[in-house]
Amino acid sequence: MSEMNRRWVLARRPAGQLKDSDFARADEPLRDLADGEVRVRVTHLSFDPTQRIWISQDSYLPAVAIGAVVRAGAIGQVVASKHPGFKPGQMVQGAFGWQDYVQSQGFTELGPITPLPAGVTPEQALGVMGLTSVTAWFGVHDILKPNAGETALVSGAAGATGSAAGQILKAAGARVIGIAGGPEKTRWVTEVAGFDACIDYKSEDVAQRIAALAPNGLDMIYENVGGPIFDAALAHLALKARVALCGAISGYDTGEVYGLKNYMNLVIQRAKIEGFLVLDYFPRVGEAVAGLGALVAAGKLKGEVDLQEGFDNIPATLRRLFEGRNFGKQLLKIADPPLPAA
Amino acid sequence: MSEMNRRWVLARRPAGQLKDSDFARADEPLRDLADGEVRVRVTHLSFDPTQRIWISQDSYLPAVAIGAVVRAGAIGQVVASKHPGFKPGQMVQGAFGWQDYVQSQGFTELGPITPLPAGVTPEQALGVMGLTSVTAWFGVHDILKPNAGETALVSGAAGATGSAAGQILKAAGARVIGIAGGPEKTRWVTEVAGFDACIDYKSEDVAQRIAALAPNGLDMIYENVGGPIFDAALAHLALKARVALCGAISGYDTGEVYGLKNYMNLVIQRAKIEGFLVLDYFPRVGEAVAGLGALVAAGKLKGEVDLQEGFDNIPATLRRLFEGRNFGKQLLKIADPPLPAA
Repeated sequence: MSEMNRRWVLARRPAGQLKDSDFARADEPLRDLADGEVRVRVTHLSFDPTQRIWISQDSYLPAVAIGAVVRAGAIGQVVASKHPGFKPGQMVQGAFGWQDYVQSQGFTELGPITPLPAGVTPEQALGVMGLTSVTAWFGVHDILKPNAGETALVSGAAGATGSAAGQILKAAGARVIGIAGGPEKTRWVTEVAGFDACIDYKSEDVAQRIAALAPNGLDMIYENVGGPIFDAALAHLALKARVALCGAISGYDTGEVYGLKNYMNLVIQRAKIEGFLVLDYFPRVGEAVAGLGALVAAGKLKGEVDLQEGFDNIPATLRRLFEGRNFGKQLLKIADPPLPAA
Repeated sequence: MSEMNRRWVLARRPAGQLKDSDFARADEPLRDLADGEVRVRVTHLSFDPTQRIWISQDSYLPAVAIGAVVRAGAIGQVVASKHPGFKPGQMVQGAFGWQDYVQSQGFTELGPITPLPAGVTPEQALGVMGLTSVTAWFGVHDILKPNAGETALVSGAAGATGSAAGQILKAAGARVIGIAGGPEKTRWVTEVAGFDACIDYKSEDVAQRIAALAPNGLDMIYENVGGPIFDAALAHLALKARVALCGAISGYDTGEVYGLKNYMNLVIQRAKIEGFLVLDYFPRVGEAVAGLGALVAAGKLKGEVDLQEGFDNIPATLRRLFEGRNFGKQLLKIADPPLPAA
């Protein structure tokens, strides 16, 4: 009997908060490897707020089909290869999804399977050097375009994207205020990630604290959260402020969308909000990785990893993002490399 | 006894819909003209949505003080002059406000008093060649940057700014859809202003009509109205859409601010919203006036003027804007030039 490939598939389009019943197990036997194919054993999965959009609706990517494996960025190890570009034992990354094995001619639906660079761990590859940091890099340098001495606000500041964005802004000479939930996260944001200040949205009045910390207004906002926190920030724009709209996690999982009331301040302050997606920057990823690598080497970019374990915990781990329970980049390990050939 | 200067002053900060009691008459004797001063008899007043902001709060300009003459753009005639730059009989423009006479050393609080160009009527100067059209010019050319064949949506399309914006977009080669209220206005927008289509928000489902008229989405939005109409438009952004946020008249006078729910679509479509004010373009007004003049001469820019009359009707005429009762640029005539020297 052949080995089984464990798979979490999408059982239905989620409505409101994610539930266990939105997902289902649909394990199937691992088929023989065809000529030209590589077999990857998935070892680490990345969990990102945008996955909630991928399973809900067509957006910038087609929605994950009902019955299909849930789409996710991941790291894996080549365990068998009939493809000239891959050798067993090699560590690779790609959009492998919520399953044990991928068999492919070298591509996933988000692009080519690429080797992990030498000296980079799976945690680093999906974390501080990963797509969330690449997103932050372009959001800061292409959308916000910081000038030294300007004041920036970063929401979701203890999250993977926000913590990278704030550190990239700091390195560019900006004064950076974070927003995060709870004393542990806010302390990490200032003491480890080195933000100038951090507002605890769970215990503080966000609007009052922004006004106190940025009396001349916010020149830049790196927005990950949306909802009332974003609205409070919009009320404190400085003249010619720029807002990089990266996400709005507060609205993804509630079934209720908060309406922004303070958008007229964009006119008063001649300010702009620009949405962006890292997909559009794929041809320039090398530029970001070089910049991020230099910051990591200089000790100016630190990332926290929240590493869960176990295949059965995959759906529950996605929920951690929307419950504000993750601390730093959310990952889950389903296998421990190095693995034997299979 | 010297002649009286009739004046409408701000009695209190308006809350919600404008009321007669927000304004008060405070006539005073006209004082003697000092050396270096010019005396202007105000003939035509301009009414603009932004006046509602000026009397409510400090914004991009300091709020009109309680007891001060209400700020307004206007046309007048020089009726006496001890200023070398002005001669009696000359027609001039400036922010003269809601009063019969201005005595000044050649300035108002918004800048210098300037002569009306030869051959331009007061209606044209405040209307199709006026600041609302200058606003539209820069909103289109500096913010939206139209490409031929793109689709644009213009809200408040029968208003002074919207009708100019749509015609400027048409002249730049865009396909232009307007939104206006009622059959008379929508007919004017297509038949006189030459928009490709116009949605009647009073009798049609705006979201459905946008979807039908722009099946590939909106590349550009010139936004004057805000509220639910803006939200419907945000749901239909095309990839890389640009939104010029000029105003949100629907929220100025209601005391209730509508919250935008569809802003996440800015991320999905990598789109941007940019607020702007014509104030910032004052150094470049000549550029716009040249462009507008060429369009008028070519018959490609037409404006409707809604001309009310009578000093007593000034506060009621401002209300017409927020009740959607004006059709085209709202003006009021308080004196008929040419006037005798005084």
